[in-house]
Amino acid sequence: MSVYLTDIPLAEAQSCLLAALKAAGLDRILGIETIPLDEQALGRVLAEPAWARMSSPHYHASAMDGFALRAEDTRGAQPSAPVTLAVNEQTIYVDTGDPLPDWANAVIPIELVESLDDLTQIAADVRQPHNIRIRAAVTPWSHVRPMGEDIVATQLVLPAGQVLRPVDLGALAAGGFTELRVSRHPRVAVIPTGTELIPIGAPIKSGDIIEYNAVVLSAQVNAWGGEAHRFPIIPDDFSLICQQVQQAADTSDLVLLNAGSSAGSEDYSARVIEQLGSVLVHGVAVRPGHPVIFGMVKHTHGSGQTPIIGVPGYPVSAALTGEIFVEPLLALWTGRQPLQPQVVEAQLTRKLTSPAGDDDFVRVVAGRVGDRLLAAPLTRGAGVITSLVRADGIAILPRGVQGLDAGSPVQVRLYRSSAELDRTIFAIGSHDLTLDLLAQYLSEHSCRLVSANVGSQGGLVALRRGEAHLAGSHLLDPSTGQYNLTAIREYLPKTPVRVIAWVDRTQGLLVRRGNPLHITTLSDLTRPDVRFVNRQRGAGTRILLDYHLAQLGVTSDQVHGYQQEEYTHLAVAAAVASGRSDCGLGIAAAAQALDLDFIPLYQEQYDLVIPVAHLAGPLLSPLWDLMADSRFRQTVAALAGYQVERMGAIVLDQS
Amino acid sequence: MSVYLTDIPLAEAQSCLLAALKAAGLDRILGIETIPLDEQALGRVLAEPAWARMSSPHYHASAMDGFALRAEDTRGAQPSAPVTLAVNEQTIYVDTGDPLPDWANAVIPIELVESLDDLTQIAADVRQPHNIRIRAAVTPWSHVRPMGEDIVATQLVLPAGQVLRPVDLGALAAGGFTELRVSRHPRVAVIPTGTELIPIGAPIKSGDIIEYNAVVLSAQVNAWGGEAHRFPIIPDDFSLICQQVQQAADTSDLVLLNAGSSAGSEDYSARVIEQLGSVLVHGVAVRPGHPVIFGMVKHTHGSGQTPIIGVPGYPVSAALTGEIFVEPLLALWTGRQPLQPQVVEAQLTRKLTSPAGDDDFVRVVAGRVGDRLLAAPLTRGAGVITSLVRADGIAILPRGVQGLDAGSPVQVRLYRSSAELDRTIFAIGSHDLTLDLLAQYLSEHSCRLVSANVGSQGGLVALRRGEAHLAGSHLLDPSTGQYNLTAIREYLPKTPVRVIAWVDRTQGLLVRRGNPLHITTLSDLTRPDVRFVNRQRGAGTRILLDYHLAQLGVTSDQVHGYQQEEYTHLAVAAAVASGRSDCGLGIAAAAQALDLDFIPLYQEQYDLVIPVAHLAGPLLSPLWDLMADSRFRQTVAALAGYQVERMGAIVLDQS
Repeated sequence: MSVYLTDIPLAEAQSCLLAALKAAGLDRILGIETIPLDEQALGRVLAEPAWARMSSPHYHASAMDGFALRAEDTRGAQPSAPVTLAVNEQTIYVDTGDPLPDWANAVIPIELVESLDDLTQIAADVRQPHNIRIRAAVTPWSHVRPMGEDIVATQLVLPAGQVLRPVDLGALAAGGFTELRVSRHPRVAVIPTGTELIPIGAPIKSGDIIEYNAVVLSAQVNAWGGEAHRFPIIPDDFSLICQQVQQAADTSDLVLLNAGSSAGSEDYSARVIEQLGSVLVHGVAVRPGHPVIFGMVKHTHGSGQTPIIGVPGYPVSAALTGEIFVEPLLALWTGRQPLQPQVVEAQLTRKLTSPAGDDDFVRVVAGRVGDRLLAAPLTRGAGVITSLVRADGIAILPRGVQGLDAGSPVQVRLYRSSAELDRTIFAIGSHDLTLDLLAQYLSEHSCRLVSANVGSQGGLVALRRGEAHLAGSHLLDPSTGQYNLTAIREYLPKTPVRVIAWVDRTQGLLVRRGNPLHITTLSDLTRPDVRFVNRQRGAGTRILLDYHLAQLGVTSDQVHGYQQEEYTHLAVAAAVASGRSDCGLGIAAAAQALDLDFIPLYQEQYDLVIPVAHLAGPLLSPLWDLMADSRFRQTVAALAGYQVERMGAIVLDQS
Repeated sequence: MSVYLTDIPLAEAQSCLLAALKAAGLDRILGIETIPLDEQALGRVLAEPAWARMSSPHYHASAMDGFALRAEDTRGAQPSAPVTLAVNEQTIYVDTGDPLPDWANAVIPIELVESLDDLTQIAADVRQPHNIRIRAAVTPWSHVRPMGEDIVATQLVLPAGQVLRPVDLGALAAGGFTELRVSRHPRVAVIPTGTELIPIGAPIKSGDIIEYNAVVLSAQVNAWGGEAHRFPIIPDDFSLICQQVQQAADTSDLVLLNAGSSAGSEDYSARVIEQLGSVLVHGVAVRPGHPVIFGMVKHTHGSGQTPIIGVPGYPVSAALTGEIFVEPLLALWTGRQPLQPQVVEAQLTRKLTSPAGDDDFVRVVAGRVGDRLLAAPLTRGAGVITSLVRADGIAILPRGVQGLDAGSPVQVRLYRSSAELDRTIFAIGSHDLTLDLLAQYLSEHSCRLVSANVGSQGGLVALRRGEAHLAGSHLLDPSTGQYNLTAIREYLPKTPVRVIAWVDRTQGLLVRRGNPLHITTLSDLTRPDVRFVNRQRGAGTRILLDYHLAQLGVTSDQVHGYQQEEYTHLAVAAAVASGRSDCGLGIAAAAQALDLDFIPLYQEQYDLVIPVAHLAGPLLSPLWDLMADSRFRQTVAALAGYQVERMGAIVLDQS
């Protein structure tokens, strides 16, 4: 069995690839094509510098509607001593953009001209003699756009490598261009392989994986100026893959061979590339994504070669391989600059560990709270594509860094603009389904809600550190029966906060449809045949559980699965729905969502805790509007187990 | 003659438009269409929230190549006491992504498994009995991607209004989508009008204007998610325009009627719109661009209406009308957020005046020098499209602000990313053609050169204020015959700078081809029949002129045209080429560029003055490389009147 080759550092892998391209003459624009200058040229890349072919204006043009004249003829004109000029002899009417007659050297705007006649008539009937009166001297060349004011023939209009924007097309037209020399689109073959893959829309069964990496890669290629050709799925068959890769290499500028780049029993990529050419790199020290392959495939005819990238199969790895390796290659081949995402320094909300040998790409959500830009790491799993969808950016932990503590500064490569981060409500705390709904509604009000789910206690701690605009919380104080107030006194004794009621919701046991194990109370959790799934420490639901277990005199080691932790209600529901567990404590809506049975046990308050510092200001104002919006309240109330009567009520004003 | 209606403030105009759209039921997504989920969906806007239809993974999946087993069976395994499991009875080989068997609850990676047999054989031939040995206990659910790890059915995958990125397509596929509900593309008719307009590529004569506004507007529409339909040019004919606008309104969601929105004798837009519907706004208090019109055109059949925008004719006004009014409209109609360019605070490099009643949009170039972000205003002319092409952003002087002093903070809406500004060499000083060439070459090295042309003295003043990375300078000290050194002592007595030789170049008189006025020396400038064009105060060429005029005993009022100032050599050449002037002092290359005759008079040194603070560091390093690059030096030397022998030599090291 083959094993992974040693991973090489990212920079080394990139220079290795570049050296191979150079040797093959492929380290430059692949080709130039001539296209008409029109709106279809948008986004194309100029292959050559554009030196103006003519000036603009290409004649002296009137800058106003008015009368062209010789400035000398108006000398001495004053309010009390107007100068009179004979139309069509000493002066002539011109519209904006009209050429200045040879003998004229200035224009006086029509609104500064007096006449007893209707001025439009002068323009309409030039044979009629008229006079105009002027009560101020005109300086030479005033209200004239001299030839070359905008562009002088031969000057540089745009450099090679310019990605053409709408206004660029205008400037090129003004500079006398009628056609453009642009780099041709690189042709990229995207080949999905894997016996387990099924196309989008096909019937699906356990073990089938919906093929979407090739769709993502193709969309990336198109977005970056390439022309993607997505091949049909090929099963794990060495000779079939060889055949398809050879055909793709013969007709494309780049081949992306997805999955099979690892060292599993059905990972053929490296062997295929060896067979058809040579493997240059197998394994790059980046995380996620390390089993990437670079190679060259020889053409069937002639001495040409086509580069090939073996793209790892995990979706996050595949998409990041696109960003890290394919985008710069397309930039090189089209002659434009590689994309340069904005990099900002942010503060980590929690500790991260990282393998010292890898460049570690950690997806984060980000938001600005007060003066600080905060980055909350998302799940690290390479299979979790939603982590890339939700990511506001990538925190890069470079080689040599083994980890970072909470509060450390970290460089974040942003996917969103600073403007978007500025209108982001950063919520850290307990998860509730209604936060998804809230996010959807807020997005209709130009506002983003980003939530990091760390449980109720974690949310209060984040507020204490000034790391969130608000925290959802449902922390029961068993001694008072009240929610949140005791915990706020404990965790936020000195922070002025307002606690606003959000929803009342029902907590209970989630069990499989039909409740096959006949679970009815918490006492059933001690049964040896019942596998429980728990929430993480600090979650309000966990505290609720511990309180009621204690009431019953049950200890945690009596509950089978107590150590099995999930971070959200839906994840608990999914664990039950899949059969991994038999029951969990959670909310009714999660049970309904995944078609589970629900055994209601407790009613609880879920509040929003908001530092007074964030109450005023435009960021949170859409939130106040939504709390009062009957359409929104009805949508929440329609979820199973939710009551919205108290929504918006002030529970506590702690200043 | 009709006059301009009173301009109304921008915000008022926008709400007036919105109110009219609301009344017509056009203040929302125009329509929804269903499209297949594939790479063609890139950039489309989700019309509805995407709630997951299935979980991902939709089964418990192995996260590694290895053996699925029951964690309980490995209890007690230790390095010294391995546990042995029978393959296909207690454990089974799984590839990454394979479903976990019902009875298993964990996976052990293949590299942690011992066997005397070839492990690939176990996978290949499952009928063969084998044993594996394990030397560490496995925790339940390790190396398993539980069902719903990525997406739990019913959760929000993406909100409505999401502009689909490549990874979004992956997440939607993972969430069980096979088709997508997206907003349809708004159909936008772009109608260019004007008897003076000719299409790109047509033969051109004086007074003709190349039509490119409609190309720019169409490209903008397409870039912003609309579908532009560019109409042929219509001459200024009321009934023809009416006919075309009516047809466009009947078949489009928006009509952009370009030019004719002003109040000139051939400006028909307002009358056309009145004829076919109603004018809502005529004149918005923004600069440039104020003669914009909003109206509604009634459909020929039915009670429908189509909004129409009368777009001003000046190209900068037209493009900004697109940005200010059309982009937000397309955002509204496709359901996405309007674009939110990054707004930064920068420091103005020179004083600006502004009409108090208008929102004033001033194009600026920007660069970061030391800790400061600087914004240098470009020309204000609405006809100068290159000002928009060169602009790094728009400084907005809001209504009520009558002007800002040099050094004032100003809000700049950026067209470029901060990353691009960080790799921008900000040059302020004397203009030379070789700076265009330098800009072109630097752009091939991931570096941008932005130059503001304020003359040699202005450049030294900018360096003193810390407002530039370098300044081009050619300031003659008549008493020593040396260039720049005296001026640097005077303007930069305390600033450590290095002066590096750039080029030697020939200055002389630019005259029309054939030198019809027989100009041969500076003395000819006093002739009454000779119209001179001068450079601006502080320009090295102006100082050279003044020096030699003084030598000859000629005063400035003896030179006809001495007050006529241009800011660049090419602008001087253009003035001569167009016949506006008869001669100017400038460089040979400018004469050659515009096919003028050149009377060489003086040889001069053109140096780069660079503060020591900027010498080291990566920003300027491509400049050092280019100075030594023989290809670059040859290109410069090939320009008429340039010598490059001294390029790169250190003229002065002042510390």
